[in-house]
Amino acid sequence: MAAARRTSRDIRSESRLVLMRALLAAGESTRNGLAEETGLSLATVSTIVGDLLKYDIAAETGLLTGGIGRPTTGLRLNADRGRVVGVYVEDRYLEATVFDAALGRLATVEATADEPVEEADDLIDWIGSAIDAALERAQANRDEVLGVGILLPGGMQRPVKAAAVLPNAIWLHLDRLRDRLGLPVVVDNPLKAIATSELWLGAGRRSANVVAVSLGYGVGAGIIQDGAVVRGATNASGEWGHSLLAFEGRRCQCGREGCVEAYVGIPGILQTLTETAPDHPLAASTACFAFLDALAAAAEAGDPAAIATIERSAHHLGAALTDLVAVLNPEVIALTGWNVGPVTRERLMSTVRQRVRDDAPGDAAADLAIEFSEQCGMDGIAAIALERFMRDIGLVTTRVPAL
Amino acid sequence: MAAARRTSRDIRSESRLVLMRALLAAGESTRNGLAEETGLSLATVSTIVGDLLKYDIAAETGLLTGGIGRPTTGLRLNADRGRVVGVYVEDRYLEATVFDAALGRLATVEATADEPVEEADDLIDWIGSAIDAALERAQANRDEVLGVGILLPGGMQRPVKAAAVLPNAIWLHLDRLRDRLGLPVVVDNPLKAIATSELWLGAGRRSANVVAVSLGYGVGAGIIQDGAVVRGATNASGEWGHSLLAFEGRRCQCGREGCVEAYVGIPGILQTLTETAPDHPLAASTACFAFLDALAAAAEAGDPAAIATIERSAHHLGAALTDLVAVLNPEVIALTGWNVGPVTRERLMSTVRQRVRDDAPGDAAADLAIEFSEQCGMDGIAAIALERFMRDIGLVTTRVPAL
Ligand SMILES: [Zn+2]
Ligand SMILES: [Zn+2]
Repeated sequence: MAAARRTSRDIRSESRLVLMRALLAAGESTRNGLAEETGLSLATVSTIVGDLLKYDIAAETGLLTGGIGRPTTGLRLNADRGRVVGVYVEDRYLEATVFDAALGRLATVEATADEPVEEADDLIDWIGSAIDAALERAQANRDEVLGVGILLPGGMQRPVKAAAVLPNAIWLHLDRLRDRLGLPVVVDNPLKAIATSELWLGAGRRSANVVAVSLGYGVGAGIIQDGAVVRGATNASGEWGHSLLAFEGRRCQCGREGCVEAYVGIPGILQTLTETAPDHPLAASTACFAFLDALAAAAEAGDPAAIATIERSAHHLGAALTDLVAVLNPEVIALTGWNVGPVTRERLMSTVRQRVRDDAPGDAAADLAIEFSEQCGMDGIAAIALERFMRDIGLVTTRVPAL
Repeated sequence: MAAARRTSRDIRSESRLVLMRALLAAGESTRNGLAEETGLSLATVSTIVGDLLKYDIAAETGLLTGGIGRPTTGLRLNADRGRVVGVYVEDRYLEATVFDAALGRLATVEATADEPVEEADDLIDWIGSAIDAALERAQANRDEVLGVGILLPGGMQRPVKAAAVLPNAIWLHLDRLRDRLGLPVVVDNPLKAIATSELWLGAGRRSANVVAVSLGYGVGAGIIQDGAVVRGATNASGEWGHSLLAFEGRRCQCGREGCVEAYVGIPGILQTLTETAPDHPLAASTACFAFLDALAAAAEAGDPAAIATIERSAHHLGAALTDLVAVLNPEVIALTGWNVGPVTRERLMSTVRQRVRDDAPGDAAADLAIEFSEQCGMDGIAAIALERFMRDIGLVTTRVPAL
């Protein structure tokens, strides 16, 4: 890949997306309001709004008379422009959600399998059936579908070597997926999706430098710098979960020793409990969200080992977040996952924030906000599918890994 | 800071810098050649070339008749457009280098102090005198100076809390510095400068995703993503040296435990030797580049403890670089510093590359090049000063922390 070769087409593309996001955030706005909100000139806003109206992506809502001055024409995104579908797939679990063109959720279908679905053709059929079922539930026709976004862990170019619940097979057969679905498809990994979700719907609305951190069974980061998602050379950025917490430390599922994930992923937290109190009743748990809930409940009931485990895990997380602050210097860290109650969350976050403040180099964390976020990869992949549609009609040049 | 508010002015600015960098790389080129090299349209190239000619930043070199087709007008950067000065300052050492406007080095002045220069006014005077001496040596007048760039470790907004040889005082008195010099000044930190150096003169010429890693007494990283230097929310990005290698590990000079720098900075390597062989003659060394040279010489002579120390340090470095690969997924890691001979370098790098290949998640390192680079912060700060001049005359909107 050569050095920056951005053209005036790219900047028009970027401005269109900025404006669409501003319109989505506002719900309803005006050309003047959008100019103020985005910092784009009124002339640029008017041109872009013209483009969006021409393609029915935005719609006029009639005259607004609020405020001072002449009534002006209201604008909104045209939710009925079409439908986008987001798909999340693991080897035993699948979810397909239909959105309108303003990223409103219309219908969701979930499916589970008794045995892991590992064959590419089986997975592809599974995905296709779930999309059909979700569209039916949303009373949407296939010809209304602007795009399908599939959340797929792993890389764009080669199958990943670290695979827990990753249906890698699909990466090798994207052509078959496209043929089976017969719809415009984009495939992206969950870290890019949570970053995109923050950009369209979350902290990216108020800050240009955000790291979206996903905490669950595995952990990772989606990076926004200067208002754009950082993808890296091969779309593989954000694998913070497999950066080091401890040199020669715990063995991670990826094969490396000492990864962040081996400490702050759910199995890592379980291991911390086991090391703290081997005979604790929860030490025999399966590593899943239910374990985390039980641990939080035990801590809230005063169980010392549970409290110590949460405290230790907060230090692990705080240290690992500090690394993101040191390298990326974000303004906001938006955490998702760890759906524990407010008491545990407060206990956790006060340690995490203190640790980051203490350890971050220089003034890197001086203005940093660390907060929980409601964003999710499903919304993000829907936004990516919408970006792909915008590209298909020639309005956007975004780098999206479409099929 | 709000979300992306890039305007068409920004993209013209970016295109001008892209074209200047392409012209610098080519030495001499043509409008067609620049269009091919940059991916910009011939119309855009012609407009930008017109701007650069108008301000004497580029010059025509007469008709070129090489190749097929009609002779075309040659172009080059106008080195004699003026002078830029780069300054590097520590508490006992100062260097000022005068460059021409095509970033050619004309003259350097070095100064050392017996006692640390700590008072802001003393430092400012010291800098002013060195600039005057360097300009005299380069036979340049003050009114030819387009800009002065000062390399200053630390943050832009507040003094850093971690200070080894950092004349922090200056950050608090930038107004006095500007008044004393009476020249257009830009101050930036060394990590942004090495990234800028790679962008203008190094790996950034062929890749849009580069991490420039500086290895010395301290260590850090300058980040290029999508052809632009990543600065972060407060210009404090790239402090990889103070990200974790080992949770609760060695105490770093920054106060944190287990930082990368505490292992791969020169004092860290010395500590590794001391832990490996406490009675080794080199274990009593002062931590400086001379120690590194001596360690390399001992290893090349077959000294087992020296070999083991270099091997161990290579594992530390490889692990820490893997973290950059995991989070940023660069195409090139450009290493500077560690000026050891080719034998030691080879020994080191084969372990480093192997470690990164083994540990990097998925395909993040599949196309990665790890190489030594000749770039340096001094060239980078000169390029930043040139960018500042371009901004002063209205051709560039780059975010540069100018005074
Ligand atoms: Zn791992
Ligand atoms: Zn440190």
